[in-house]
Amino acid sequence: MNFQSKFLTRSQSLKSLLCVGLDPDYCKLPEIIKRSPEPLVHFCREIIDATAPYAVAYKPNIAFFEVFGSSGIRQFEKVIGHLKNNYPQIPIVADIKRGDLDNTARQYARYYFGDLQVDSLTLSPYMGLDTLRPFLEYQDHLVFWLCLTSSPDSIQFQKKRFSETGRTLYEEVAYVANSISPLNLGFVVGATNTYELEILRKQNPDRIFLIPGFGAQGAKLDDLLPVCGRYSLINSSRGIHFASDGLDFAARANQEAEKIHNAMQARFVFL
Amino acid sequence: MNFQSKFLTRSQSLKSLLCVGLDPDYCKLPEIIKRSPEPLVHFCREIIDATAPYAVAYKPNIAFFEVFGSSGIRQFEKVIGHLKNNYPQIPIVADIKRGDLDNTARQYARYYFGDLQVDSLTLSPYMGLDTLRPFLEYQDHLVFWLCLTSSPDSIQFQKKRFSETGRTLYEEVAYVANSISPLNLGFVVGATNTYELEILRKQNPDRIFLIPGFGAQGAKLDDLLPVCGRYSLINSSRGIHFASDGLDFAARANQEAEKIHNAMQARFVFL
Repeated sequence: MNFQSKFLTRSQSLKSLLCVGLDPDYCKLPEIIKRSPEPLVHFCREIIDATAPYAVAYKPNIAFFEVFGSSGIRQFEKVIGHLKNNYPQIPIVADIKRGDLDNTARQYARYYFGDLQVDSLTLSPYMGLDTLRPFLEYQDHLVFWLCLTSSPDSIQFQKKRFSETGRTLYEEVAYVANSISPLNLGFVVGATNTYELEILRKQNPDRIFLIPGFGAQGAKLDDLLPVCGRYSLINSSRGIHFASDGLDFAARANQEAEKIHNAMQARFVFL
Repeated sequence: MNFQSKFLTRSQSLKSLLCVGLDPDYCKLPEIIKRSPEPLVHFCREIIDATAPYAVAYKPNIAFFEVFGSSGIRQFEKVIGHLKNNYPQIPIVADIKRGDLDNTARQYARYYFGDLQVDSLTLSPYMGLDTLRPFLEYQDHLVFWLCLTSSPDSIQFQKKRFSETGRTLYEEVAYVANSISPLNLGFVVGATNTYELEILRKQNPDRIFLIPGFGAQGAKLDDLLPVCGRYSLINSSRGIHFASDGLDFAARANQEAEKIHNAMQARFVFL
């Protein structure tokens, strides 16, 4: 099943847009987990099993695994394996933000789509369409291209306007992406930019948006939902899995995910 | 010794700017290497030992290792270990092109600078300065920020001009970088852009430039050297290490590296 179908099936069955991010920052892990031989696997498994009833998708960020080099990547592979073996109905977004030229990009595509078989991933657009094409050949998988991010620094480049086209950089990214119009391409749009999000949604009614920055980074559900529409994944990471650093971390993650789930479900019919 | 000193010492002693790229694309490896239990380590070691007399720096691109997941990253770590143990005087540029927010960026910085201890690495600027800061704290290491790349698609975004500042995106990247003015920051400027390279060099006389796109990607030494100046690393990857796919691959890599070395050495005094 391709990403779009998997996402829509899951989203409509849960009546929610909740993407559970997995940022297993070692320093913030509960002490009992830190003593585990594979702390990242241990932590992520517990969080996944506790939040699966409410997760429309999971988004592990590879940086928190890559910090441990090859042993961290081995743990990343085990977390992906746990998801695929136990929750094949829940799509995976690998948050990798890679971006390199054609033949080099092809290596990343082969690993994440061809080998690991994650459903989707994030890419950075700085080097243009060349960086995207090898991924789009995997037609059952989807790429989320960084468009407008949620960092305060995003205005340094992304919100500046080009004189030649009249578009800001992030609008130009969306425009260039649409010029090749692949079905399996979505955009990352930070939750803190509700004004721009509304415009982007109107211009791209059929593209799936991955929306980070909800919760810990400050955006509110009542501002977001009216503008993002059903073709969106709203991500919360730390707000869920670091709700507690005690023995009850999994139970608290379950509660936090349920809380967001209920809030989304109550509003889903109006989207 | 910090990156700048290590680079200048090495460059002045060889009278060259040659950076030997390591892109061990598995499909293109000699057949005898493909049968090795660790083909990427085997290939890179042979290439390194054959080219070390002429290498001012080495630039392994992690994508060609990451394609094999955790086992590929383990091979990457062994290649870095081989360089650090046997050629501590030759600086390493890890070509990773990562780019993520503050706390996530910190994970990458910790692995590559704190743990692996590579001398420098490449980063993508799309998300702004936030992505850069955790790396710059490692003051003995240097970051090459992607500025103007050598892909044909680079004009899609990088060469477009902002109306507000009058600068193109790549000029804006250089401007924003200079606004915080760290000493341990350099730029990636593709060799195919000699016109822009000349202007960037005049505006940034003291920044170290990493210049890919020489050789296989088409740029010529006689066009490049007059404009790039001594504070540059000119990279050649495939042109050196894939000069032959037969049993003589290491000997041919040695010859190709020597050829470029001699050409650079003959012109070094005029830089």
